[in-house]
Amino acid sequence: MKVIEKIAALRALMRENKLAAYVVPGNDPHASEYMASHWCEMQWLSGFNGEAGTMVVTLDQAFLWTDSRYYLQAGIELKDSTIELMRESDVDCPSVIDWLSENVQGSVGVNPEMFSVNDYKEWSEKAELQSIDLIKGLWTEGRPAIPADKLYPYAADFAGESVESKLTRMREQLAKKKADAMIISALDEIAWLLNIRGNDVEYNPVVISYVVLEANKCTLFVDANKIDSPAQNYLDFNNIDIQAYEAVFDYIRSLSGTVLYDGARVNEALYEAIPEGCKKINTKSPILIDKAKKNAVELEGERIAMRQDGVALTRFFKWLEEEAFKTPQTECTLADKLHEFRAMGENFVEESFGTIAGYKGNGAIVHYAATPDNCAVVKPEGMLLLDSGGQYLDGTTDITRTVWLGGRIPQQAKLDYTYVLKGHIALARARFPRGTRGNQIDALAKQYMWEAGITYGHGTGHGVGHFLGCHEGPQNVRTDNNPTALEIGHIISDEPGIYRTDMWGIRTENLITVIPAKQTKATTTEDEWLAFETLTLCFYDTSLIEMSLMTEDEIDWLNAYHVRVYKEISPLLNNEEKSYLAYKCAAIELE
Amino acid sequence: MKVIEKIAALRALMRENKLAAYVVPGNDPHASEYMASHWCEMQWLSGFNGEAGTMVVTLDQAFLWTDSRYYLQAGIELKDSTIELMRESDVDCPSVIDWLSENVQGSVGVNPEMFSVNDYKEWSEKAELQSIDLIKGLWTEGRPAIPADKLYPYAADFAGESVESKLTRMREQLAKKKADAMIISALDEIAWLLNIRGNDVEYNPVVISYVVLEANKCTLFVDANKIDSPAQNYLDFNNIDIQAYEAVFDYIRSLSGTVLYDGARVNEALYEAIPEGCKKINTKSPILIDKAKKNAVELEGERIAMRQDGVALTRFFKWLEEEAFKTPQTECTLADKLHEFRAMGENFVEESFGTIAGYKGNGAIVHYAATPDNCAVVKPEGMLLLDSGGQYLDGTTDITRTVWLGGRIPQQAKLDYTYVLKGHIALARARFPRGTRGNQIDALAKQYMWEAGITYGHGTGHGVGHFLGCHEGPQNVRTDNNPTALEIGHIISDEPGIYRTDMWGIRTENLITVIPAKQTKATTTEDEWLAFETLTLCFYDTSLIEMSLMTEDEIDWLNAYHVRVYKEISPLLNNEEKSYLAYKCAAIELE
Repeated sequence: MKVIEKIAALRALMRENKLAAYVVPGNDPHASEYMASHWCEMQWLSGFNGEAGTMVVTLDQAFLWTDSRYYLQAGIELKDSTIELMRESDVDCPSVIDWLSENVQGSVGVNPEMFSVNDYKEWSEKAELQSIDLIKGLWTEGRPAIPADKLYPYAADFAGESVESKLTRMREQLAKKKADAMIISALDEIAWLLNIRGNDVEYNPVVISYVVLEANKCTLFVDANKIDSPAQNYLDFNNIDIQAYEAVFDYIRSLSGTVLYDGARVNEALYEAIPEGCKKINTKSPILIDKAKKNAVELEGERIAMRQDGVALTRFFKWLEEEAFKTPQTECTLADKLHEFRAMGENFVEESFGTIAGYKGNGAIVHYAATPDNCAVVKPEGMLLLDSGGQYLDGTTDITRTVWLGGRIPQQAKLDYTYVLKGHIALARARFPRGTRGNQIDALAKQYMWEAGITYGHGTGHGVGHFLGCHEGPQNVRTDNNPTALEIGHIISDEPGIYRTDMWGIRTENLITVIPAKQTKATTTEDEWLAFETLTLCFYDTSLIEMSLMTEDEIDWLNAYHVRVYKEISPLLNNEEKSYLAYKCAAIELE
Repeated sequence: MKVIEKIAALRALMRENKLAAYVVPGNDPHASEYMASHWCEMQWLSGFNGEAGTMVVTLDQAFLWTDSRYYLQAGIELKDSTIELMRESDVDCPSVIDWLSENVQGSVGVNPEMFSVNDYKEWSEKAELQSIDLIKGLWTEGRPAIPADKLYPYAADFAGESVESKLTRMREQLAKKKADAMIISALDEIAWLLNIRGNDVEYNPVVISYVVLEANKCTLFVDANKIDSPAQNYLDFNNIDIQAYEAVFDYIRSLSGTVLYDGARVNEALYEAIPEGCKKINTKSPILIDKAKKNAVELEGERIAMRQDGVALTRFFKWLEEEAFKTPQTECTLADKLHEFRAMGENFVEESFGTIAGYKGNGAIVHYAATPDNCAVVKPEGMLLLDSGGQYLDGTTDITRTVWLGGRIPQQAKLDYTYVLKGHIALARARFPRGTRGNQIDALAKQYMWEAGITYGHGTGHGVGHFLGCHEGPQNVRTDNNPTALEIGHIISDEPGIYRTDMWGIRTENLITVIPAKQTKATTTEDEWLAFETLTLCFYDTSLIEMSLMTEDEIDWLNAYHVRVYKEISPLLNNEEKSYLAYKCAAIELE
């Protein structure tokens, strides 16, 4: 079917069901960041292949909302589709729900599986929603199946806590809230709770499934094909019942008593299945909260993964300086080569997201993604921004380095690099009382560039999972208000940046974890003090530092970090690589 | 009547009205920080004379909630009263409403005039409230009248904007929200809107009154005795109708259409008077928002007031160093002397709050208030913290200086003073993009002491009015989330501190105002940039600075500030005073 035919067929169904509009958001039923192609309904219906967007079809019009990253692509792909592009990054563009509220009289159909309970509730206040899945009946031919890759147990040696212990902890939470059951639909929460992993979603080692946890039962709703005999034994051993993926709805319909759910992560269809007689408690997921606080084994795993990652990056940068330009290179060939080096690492599974290799002006496009058909040729000159990460059985990594490939360095490039580095160090060195939220310390990373009238629009730090999502909540370091206090064991990124259109993008990123700070004699209060340990192990390009802007404390911090990088990485390198690393980690000093 | 008799009489009324509990909060009907004694119902009923507290009476028990400042005083004053003290600063002390919710079955009586609409609503969700004033019938003998001081016009020369212009602006806001009337009960909002001032409340030059603003009418509800003939002419000229203070309720009962109110500031009794048929819009007061953004005339007035204040402080500190200890001094005699010097200033009206003179360990008690009966003798040795301010016709001041009176300075005192000073300077020098909230830059003032494991519990900065409240919203710089962005014309205090129990308190405070920052060539975005101008003009005690902690930028800032202080203050001083000031403002430099 062509897009026009699909829309016509949808409208026929809309008329049948007396709907004035139908909305297809770019979501899946698990509030996932990366989606299986089975759920790419927005892309199927619109013909637009970008990763973010929402489609709205009325009886005589069709619209696609997407953000500025995709304006160009959408403009091309929506040609001849009759779909109008709504540029949602533009200031005067209404949100989807505001547009619906202003322009649609009558019912708006939505598939409740694709909406979180909270979003559905918010939309309900502004539009007359009707829960109905019209795409199911239309998208029958060629629809990819739900991935059926095998589920595998994730050893407690890596996870640091047994399933039994995790289930006990969560059942204590249930008891505390006097609840009888908890519905879990976020895939990373399920993977963490049951110590399982899978290959269903790109970049995230999760298993497509639901869980309902009760005082004496834990039921995993998952496609039977995913369970081989070892997996079956593992689940049996841990008293985890298995039912079919789709059976979750009937199961929820049979619940009684009090049901707990996190309205930000559980989808509306699951919520609608809860029987009327049940008491419903919408609460921040206790799994989300506990999962974010990494245990000692998880942190030790992160440190192991970081050494593997550091080795890969050292080899990559050595190759980049010494070998790469003997043949032509593009942003994509560099990303591929980095992948090759990472793949040599022990326990490497996959990349944790698509590498961003942004050469010169492309580095200034914050979510830039080069494709083999459309990427820049890289030469041994100018600035290269490289943001990449790996999924290792031991943990998840995410690192950005910006390096100068050759030629005379403009003074503004050095200033920009140094403002970013100073902010990056200020956050890494920060010490703060327990209870401090990420948005309180965001400005520490920005203060030096602010002094020069420079800022950036993205977050300074996102939470990171342990061999799970590279982006996880609830902690972060951003401008926006976030009530979550930073807690011991949280992992966040530390990644300030400066972006100059058509010139360069500079970002420096390490992962850091919250640790108890040493008490000093001077301490005035009984408060506990927190600080960060830097996890990432890779040198910075010191040739880009404007030394006159650096304080002694900052130089000391950087030199100590480089000593540590050399000490931890060099035992894993050959002699030639060691010399290279020693050279890159040489101490810097004020003239 | 004794307290026990008052409580017994109240219980008789409670039984008559079938109430299980009655609550007397320490509020007035105008959400005032400083209250007229007429409304001190909590103090009258309990016999406790502290400034903050809430009394709860049940049929067989009585409780007073107050914070740690008043534990000692309440312990003494509540003796033999049968009232149990609830220590609300203690971690395990329930809030009043949580206690009521857990412990009271049946109706809880409250006077709706003493609750904001929002608080009343919040409490209603946890307790069965009944709006009723039982104190009125009990407190008949010796109850102070509502103050009846004269109202006076505040010249547009000082206010910088005519009443007509302000009313027009607010009527535009009404029209924009399609509202017919706005209820205003906060006394500083009324004073600002109508360019009037009075003497009804200590430290705040306001007039006890209400206002209802409509498209073609503005009605001031105020005691007729307050209006002399010039005031009458002024109000007539500006088409402001006058009705009796109590008439506001009947007036509101006669409204129709859509009524606007700020639920955080308007009391529940006014809200309950709005007719059922009216549409009610609870919105942040547009007066509050506009009042906070000082116009050019108000800011120029602030600068004039600051010069007067700087002269008073210079003379005071000179006297303190050269004369004071020829006779015995206490914290109170010093505060009185400072008042004397301030009172010599042109256009001085009164203090803007009760001076805090905290000698040695008393300085570490954050809301310390010495009384003639209970204050420390001050000798020419050790640390003195002095927090004071003035109300001038030109503007409101608030300044804290901490000085060393003599003897050898402990190294920790110098470190503490310097951490505070560095934070104070970091905030004063900050530059940030438009849209930044106070809680984003709070950590700039704390980062250096945090590094040493030290913090403080109070806000870093509060908003300040213009010849109005020394504390005003909505802007501030605090740890807590506050959605208000800092805007050009906002005035806030910059007052980090370090407090060492039984040793010293150190706080350094200036008022600063938000101004446009100079654009630099480096700016990467289209954002507007903001910065602060320091308004306060008084030297710091440089003898307390540990120079090894100071950066060149900080020293340059401090020296430039001292040059400015001398330049602006010295023309108002005699020669001897000039020499003293020159000595205090001498440049400091790194050894």
